[in-house]
Amino acid sequence: MFQDKNTRIVLASRPSGRVKSDNFRVEHQPIPAPGKGEVLLKILFLSLDPYMRGRMDDAKSYAAPVAVGNVMEGGTVAEVIASNNDHYAAGDIVLSHSGWQSYAISDGKGLTRLDPKLAPVSTALGVLGMPGFTAYAGLLTIGRPQPGETVVVAAASGPVGSAVGQIARIKGARAVGIAGGPDKCAFIRNELGFDAAIDHRAPDFPEQLKQACPGGIDVYFENVGGPVWDAVFPLLNSFARIPVCGLISQYSGIAPSETDRLPGVMRAVLTKSLTIRGFIQREFVDQRPAFLQAMPEWLRAGQVKYREDIVDGLTNAPEAFMGLLEGRNFGKLIVRVA
Amino acid sequence: MFQDKNTRIVLASRPSGRVKSDNFRVEHQPIPAPGKGEVLLKILFLSLDPYMRGRMDDAKSYAAPVAVGNVMEGGTVAEVIASNNDHYAAGDIVLSHSGWQSYAISDGKGLTRLDPKLAPVSTALGVLGMPGFTAYAGLLTIGRPQPGETVVVAAASGPVGSAVGQIARIKGARAVGIAGGPDKCAFIRNELGFDAAIDHRAPDFPEQLKQACPGGIDVYFENVGGPVWDAVFPLLNSFARIPVCGLISQYSGIAPSETDRLPGVMRAVLTKSLTIRGFIQREFVDQRPAFLQAMPEWLRAGQVKYREDIVDGLTNAPEAFMGLLEGRNFGKLIVRVA
Repeated sequence: MFQDKNTRIVLASRPSGRVKSDNFRVEHQPIPAPGKGEVLLKILFLSLDPYMRGRMDDAKSYAAPVAVGNVMEGGTVAEVIASNNDHYAAGDIVLSHSGWQSYAISDGKGLTRLDPKLAPVSTALGVLGMPGFTAYAGLLTIGRPQPGETVVVAAASGPVGSAVGQIARIKGARAVGIAGGPDKCAFIRNELGFDAAIDHRAPDFPEQLKQACPGGIDVYFENVGGPVWDAVFPLLNSFARIPVCGLISQYSGIAPSETDRLPGVMRAVLTKSLTIRGFIQREFVDQRPAFLQAMPEWLRAGQVKYREDIVDGLTNAPEAFMGLLEGRNFGKLIVRVA
Repeated sequence: MFQDKNTRIVLASRPSGRVKSDNFRVEHQPIPAPGKGEVLLKILFLSLDPYMRGRMDDAKSYAAPVAVGNVMEGGTVAEVIASNNDHYAAGDIVLSHSGWQSYAISDGKGLTRLDPKLAPVSTALGVLGMPGFTAYAGLLTIGRPQPGETVVVAAASGPVGSAVGQIARIKGARAVGIAGGPDKCAFIRNELGFDAAIDHRAPDFPEQLKQACPGGIDVYFENVGGPVWDAVFPLLNSFARIPVCGLISQYSGIAPSETDRLPGVMRAVLTKSLTIRGFIQREFVDQRPAFLQAMPEWLRAGQVKYREDIVDGLTNAPEAFMGLLEGRNFGKLIVRVA
């Protein structure tokens, strides 16, 4: 295997607005050799997630941007193929954060060993990983859905949205999902068991959403931004909670409104006692044990289902990532690297 | 005393934009006689507060609007002058919600007996009343200032803002107050002990605020809206908390920005994990006992000071209220009715 090369996808340039192919560059390098205490990882799966769009910009955020010329960042599932580390042996399957490349060196810090018998190892990037935990922590800590309340989530066929709606139902709330196109809506309603699914591409989308929420909206899990907000906003009930975990539309620079929406939003914050709360999953790290106990049980009981959208080959990652930003994926987007 | 008349100030018409004198009408009626189980109250003090602006509109809010032709709503301190109620006797001083009038009937519900020996009874409308409790509950429950953090509050010489800053300091945080004019700023710094006071009328106000917050802003207690927001917003730290309890500027319809500020705000909510949380003090009713224990102790210890702006005569209430909306009062605005 050491005859192989390490294929890496680096950030070639920062996007201005929409991400394009030439923002990425494929490089081939010799496979590195593990030093003292290190392991060599062969990447099996790479997760593609909306937050990566933020890392491509030089804007101030909760995480440092990827430097131009560096490997794109990302969560990965990998096999240890050579080890100088007492804690890992060749053949171990681990969760790592090795980025968009086919091989990587690790000193063992930040690796988590996975049990392939427990669940398909790719789920460590989805329903049992960061997206699932984002849904769990954001919904239960900030959203706090009560029985009979209405929870609305967009990108509802995606890994975060699908978990949000299904956990909301487990907690006794109504789940209304928003997605793009009839196939995704049918999936949300029929496979995931949401109470309603609305196609945001429908010309009467705001009216459909209103009819699906006759008692108003108590929790809006905001993970897309853009025009969905304008349809949700007038339906928010007093004391509604809005966990904010990702604004895909804004990442790609969707045009703002012609009028200033902020005064109206702040007035509603006041008169309806709204809570708008941005978060990243790692601030809720103390809830990971509870999540890792609850989610596998929900999976086994069939109360939470998931869907993966697997793309073959690392060099297809840029195209797949651009599709993700435009909502062309259907389920958790994962690249099969090896 | 029954030769007297009941003077009432009613809502004559709903304001369109700025409140004007002709939105109010003074009426004189016979003093009502208390029925079975009722008391007759002579109003001593009427509280004037920003929330009353909201009640003048027909917009959906957390409270019903005042109907046109009805007495303006408001908190009052009153003396029981005739009683058919076993729980109250003539001479009792009570906190009531009798509105803008000189006499009122009550069945006893919602009255709170006051002890004139504990503190001047007018404080039941200010530092020991709704404004003080708004500051206490909003700051401690939503703002949660930590030692060394920076808390910014506008209208800092007013009853809510002055309590916010002083409680922040008791909790070990830095307090930066914003107010209009040098007299109020000197009062905030020298009398109330804020760490800094900034005049929002200064041409370089944003720059002054930035210099007063070298470590950024961790808590912004939003009680004014308008241009202060634009100066505060870029200084917010990650995980900043923004309790929102009143937007005086917005009540009076200050023009929105020419550009849509919402996408930028939502992006900051996401990337900085901000919390924006509207509230009304009555949702924190479970904290009233703790407040009623803590605040009198802070007053006795001189850790919290307060200032009242007393206007004589009920018929001066409309003019005083319009001044409040424009920031012309200096301290808790109270009308001495009797």
